[in-house]
Amino acid sequence: MPEYELIYWPITGLGEPIRLCMAIGGIPFTDTTPKSDEKFMDKKNGLAPMQVPILLVDGKPMDQSSAILRYMGKLCKYEGKPLYPEDPMEAYWCDNLIMLIDDCRSPIAGTFAIQDQAEKEAARAALFAEDGKISKFLAIINDKIVERLGKPVNVGDLYALCITNMFRQPTFIDGIPAGALDKYENLTKFHEQMAKLPPILEYYKDAVEIRTTFKPFNP
Amino acid sequence: MPEYELIYWPITGLGEPIRLCMAIGGIPFTDTTPKSDEKFMDKKNGLAPMQVPILLVDGKPMDQSSAILRYMGKLCKYEGKPLYPEDPMEAYWCDNLIMLIDDCRSPIAGTFAIQDQAEKEAARAALFAEDGKISKFLAIINDKIVERLGKPVNVGDLYALCITNMFRQPTFIDGIPAGALDKYENLTKFHEQMAKLPPILEYYKDAVEIRTTFKPFNP
Repeated sequence: MPEYELIYWPITGLGEPIRLCMAIGGIPFTDTTPKSDEKFMDKKNGLAPMQVPILLVDGKPMDQSSAILRYMGKLCKYEGKPLYPEDPMEAYWCDNLIMLIDDCRSPIAGTFAIQDQAEKEAARAALFAEDGKISKFLAIINDKIVERLGKPVNVGDLYALCITNMFRQPTFIDGIPAGALDKYENLTKFHEQMAKLPPILEYYKDAVEIRTTFKPFNP
Repeated sequence: MPEYELIYWPITGLGEPIRLCMAIGGIPFTDTTPKSDEKFMDKKNGLAPMQVPILLVDGKPMDQSSAILRYMGKLCKYEGKPLYPEDPMEAYWCDNLIMLIDDCRSPIAGTFAIQDQAEKEAARAALFAEDGKISKFLAIINDKIVERLGKPVNVGDLYALCITNMFRQPTFIDGIPAGALDKYENLTKFHEQMAKLPPILEYYKDAVEIRTTFKPFNP
């Protein structure tokens, strides 16, 4: 097996679906963050213009998180099935979910540049208001995620879990209103299904801080 | 074979890579645009919140253009090889290119909302200036696309061809400076390789207006 090293911030974000995929698939990797590696910034800057998360495979760098996730999903299996579906139509719906989740998260990107803290938090809260740009997509996701209930896990599910959990408190993105996702009942059901999957339950059993959102709400 | 119908504007944009993939793979489809179907807007609005391009497969709608493109790339072959690579690492680089091209095109999205024509064109020209946001990615793509020269065609190549051609005159996006891509020599070589691929050459042999950019520069 090649040596794998994932270079990313200590946050969940775009690195967590890859970490989780590899954990489920039982593929060991070095999880390199600024905490674990004092030369992190040199390493990261030396790989520019590639952007983190970057996966090194025997030292060879790969970037673009959901391309990495698809790749890893082909290598990692759960209960004998690859986490990136082999059937083209199943794979299509997996890809479709990843892209819908990207549409949902994309309005938050513009808020990271806002310098004033109060202004930044207000801009973020507005995204989750009734007519907010993120609310619009959360409603669509809440409708579509029903189709994932009771189905074998895939990388689209991992992506949906990790990205929607960024919008649950506690999170590394300040200004997300507490309980912002509470009204999306199907999304709550999906969260429970995912959090209770044995390897996910195991992976987060000692989770603290921002990763507590990966534990079941009703254990 | 199922019946396929693609619902999209008459522009190239995000629909063209799917059209081209199906043309290369010899999969017939109804190309539904406002020109070909007077009920286009009713049809499109009836499928909301899905966004065009939408592919109907025996009437069942699929959206998210690059998810559709990956799906079709698994069904369509050229010289015996599926256009979405079967080898996981080849598929990774194909996905990586699609996402890099998305990074490159994304700054243009914000300019469509600018009402004043002169202001809009100035904003677009700025993206292609020496330090422009799109120029930054074009330089990266120009470096990376070398790896695609002489390789069997895949859906990442189709995506790269169609999206970079949006930045060549004549195009449906006003305000893109003429010759904006001329300095990217590898991208020009890649354009020629793609435009001279027999099924692509055939597909655009009678091309007019915005699709003339798909013909070889040096036939």
